[in-house]
Amino acid sequence: MPEITINLAAGRTDEQKRGMMADITAALVKNLGVDPEVVVIQINEAPLSHKMKGGKTYLERQAKT
Amino acid sequence: MPEITINLAAGRTDEQKRGMMADITAALVKNLGVDPEVVVIQINEAPLSHKMKGGKTYLERQAKT
Amino acid sequence: MPEITINLAAGRTDEQKRGMMADITAALVKNLGVDPEVVVIQINEAPLSHKMKGGKTYLERQAKT
Amino acid sequence: MPEITINLAAGRTDEQKRGMMADITAALVKNLGVDPEVVVIQINEAPLSHKMKGGKTYLERQAKT
Amino acid sequence: MPEITINLAAGRTDEQKRGMMADITAALVKNLGVDPEVVVIQINEAPLSHKMKGGKTYLERQAKT
Amino acid sequence: MPEITINLAAGRTDEQKRGMMADITAALVKNLGVDPEVVVIQINEAPLSHKMKGGKTYLERQAKT
Repeated sequence: MPEITINLAAGRTDEQKRGMMADITAALVKNLGVDPEVVVIQINEAPLSHKMKGGKTYLERQAKT
Repeated sequence: MPEITINLAAGRTDEQKRGMMADITAALVKNLGVDPEVVVIQINEAPLSHKMKGGKTYLERQAKT
Repeated sequence: MPEITINLAAGRTDEQKRGMMADITAALVKNLGVDPEVVVIQINEAPLSHKMKGGKTYLERQAKT
Repeated sequence: MPEITINLAAGRTDEQKRGMMADITAALVKNLGVDPEVVVIQINEAPLSHKMKGGKTYLERQAKT
Repeated sequence: MPEITINLAAGRTDEQKRGMMADITAALVKNLGVDPEVVVIQINEAPLSHKMKGGKTYLERQAKT
Repeated sequence: MPEITINLAAGRTDEQKRGMMADITAALVKNLGVDPEVVVIQINEAPLSHKMKGGKTYLERQAKT
C-alpha cells in the first residue's frame, strides 16, 4: 500500500492535479505491480507565502519573474 | 515524542476529528507509556479533488456512490 | 481513506508498535465509521541522533536522564 | 536536496513565517554546506481544531489560557 | 517545486523504485509543465512490522497470503 | 507546537545534523517566540537510491559528479 503525499504550491488547475495523480497511480501500478485501488495520493497544497526556496518565498520569487 | 500526521479527506465533523485525536492520544499513552503532553497530532485535511485512490479522485468516487 | 504517519524515536518493541497501530485503527473505525481496511498507518522510525526536542537530540536528552 | 515540512497551528503572521523559513534556510546552508536554491520548505498550517496535544485540541487549550 | 514523499513497505527492488520515481517525475513534468530538475521525490521505506492496514501489520498480512 | 520533518539524503555527519537541528530550533524560538521545549524535529534519512531529482536518483547524480 504505497501512500503518496505531494507538497505543492497553490496555482494549478483541478484538471492538472487530477491528471498528475492519475499518471502517478499508473506509474505505481506499472513499476510495483500493485492494484490501483491500493494507491492513495494526497496533495497538501500551500499558499505561495507558505513555501520557500533559496531563502525567498514563492510569493517573492513570483514577484521577481 | 511521537508526532502523528493524519492525511484526511474533507467532510468529517469537528466532533469526529476531536474524538479520533483523543482516542489516538490514548492509544499512544497505553501502548508506549508516554505522557499525553508529549503526544502531538495534526490533521492535514484535503478537499476531495486533492485526493485520489484507484486512479479516481475522491470527488469522482463520491459521484459514483 | 485516512493515512497516518507516525514519527517515532527508535527504542520501542514490535509488540508496543503493533498494539499502538491496532488501537489507532480502532480509533478511526470508531470515530469516522470507516472500514478497517481503508486505514493505513506507517511508522517512520528515527535513531535518537536524528530527533531533537528543546534544542537537544534524543541521544543527549537520554544521556541526561 | 533537503525538503523541510513544518506542521504549524494557524495564528502566526506572514512575516513570522517568512522570517522562520529564511532562518531555517540559513541553518541548512551553514550546517550542510548546500546551496540555498536546493533548500525547499513548506508550511502545512492547520486550524486549531485540527491539532491536539495532551488529549486537548489547540482550540480547547487556547480557551483554558 | 513539488516535493513528493512515498510511504512504502520494504520488499521492492532498486530497479522498481528507480522506475517508479522516474515515471512519477515524468507525470509531473507532463501535467504541471515543470522542469524535471525541480521535481524531488523521497521514498520513506518501512519494515513490514512498521506498517498496518485493516488492523493487521504487513508482516501479519504477508503470513496469511 | 511546530513539528518539523526533514527529508534528507544519507551522507552527513551526526555533528552536521545536530548543528542543523539546533539552529532550526533557534530559528523557531526567535521568529515564533515559542519555548524550545515545544519544538520537535525529525530527520527522515533516505539512502541515495531512494531519492530522485530531475529524473535521476541521487546515486546516479553522484556518479556523474
